[in-house]
Amino acid sequence: MNMSGRCAGCKYLRRRCPSDCILSPYFPSSDPQRFASVHRIYGASNVAKMLQELMPHLRAQAAETLRYEAQCRIQDPISGCVGVISQLHQQIQDTECQLAKTRAEVALMNSDGQEPPQAQADQQI
Amino acid sequence: MNMSGRCAGCKYLRRRCPSDCILSPYFPSSDPQRFASVHRIYGASNVAKMLQELMPHLRAQAAETLRYEAQCRIQDPISGCVGVISQLHQQIQDTECQLAKTRAEVALMNSDGQEPPQAQADQQI
Repeated sequence: MNMSGRCAGCKYLRRRCPSDCILSPYFPSSDPQRFASVHRIYGASNVAKMLQELMPHLRAQAAETLRYEAQCRIQDPISGCVGVISQLHQQIQDTECQLAKTRAEVALMNSDGQEPPQAQADQQI
Repeated sequence: MNMSGRCAGCKYLRRRCPSDCILSPYFPSSDPQRFASVHRIYGASNVAKMLQELMPHLRAQAAETLRYEAQCRIQDPISGCVGVISQLHQQIQDTECQLAKTRAEVALMNSDGQEPPQAQADQQI
């Protein structure tokens, strides 16, 4: 492959891009930032190694999740995407709390004489 | 510092552990696996660089989140902790769905003649 057809990784690392380049399919030269992010966090050789260890059809997803995690780490150098995980846990807790309140509301409405006596007896067990 | 007092990082890398070692407080020799995980995914020099760029009081959290993300990536080399994020999104969706159903149940019970006419009119706007 000639120098002008190099992928973003080989261009960044100023090297020839071999025809079987492991980075090439996932880090096109049209998106240099994508490679720059994973290189900054993991280093090109670690990214190449992680992709190499996977079956070819799984590499695109791995490259994409590495890109996402790298970007999270750049945006939040303290927590990375663990910060996102914490936010989602908080969101789950909030929604579960609302659900519990709403279920309590239903139970209260049912206990206001709308529910047949048998069902009320079941709930007390 | 003598060789026997080296942190897990310096021990793994077979080097002297300087008294101001950036890895030492977060990767004690008592937990070699902790360092091995981040070294495998990020490489020791990238971990050191990421910690160095932070204020000292923020480094413990960064080391812990890097350890978590590295462990996720080792367990799930395709998705890393983005797999956890996907699961949490699914859990939020499930809980929101249950909440919507329960709220619909409340609305239905209210519309069964329990709600004052004004509130019903408001809902139609």
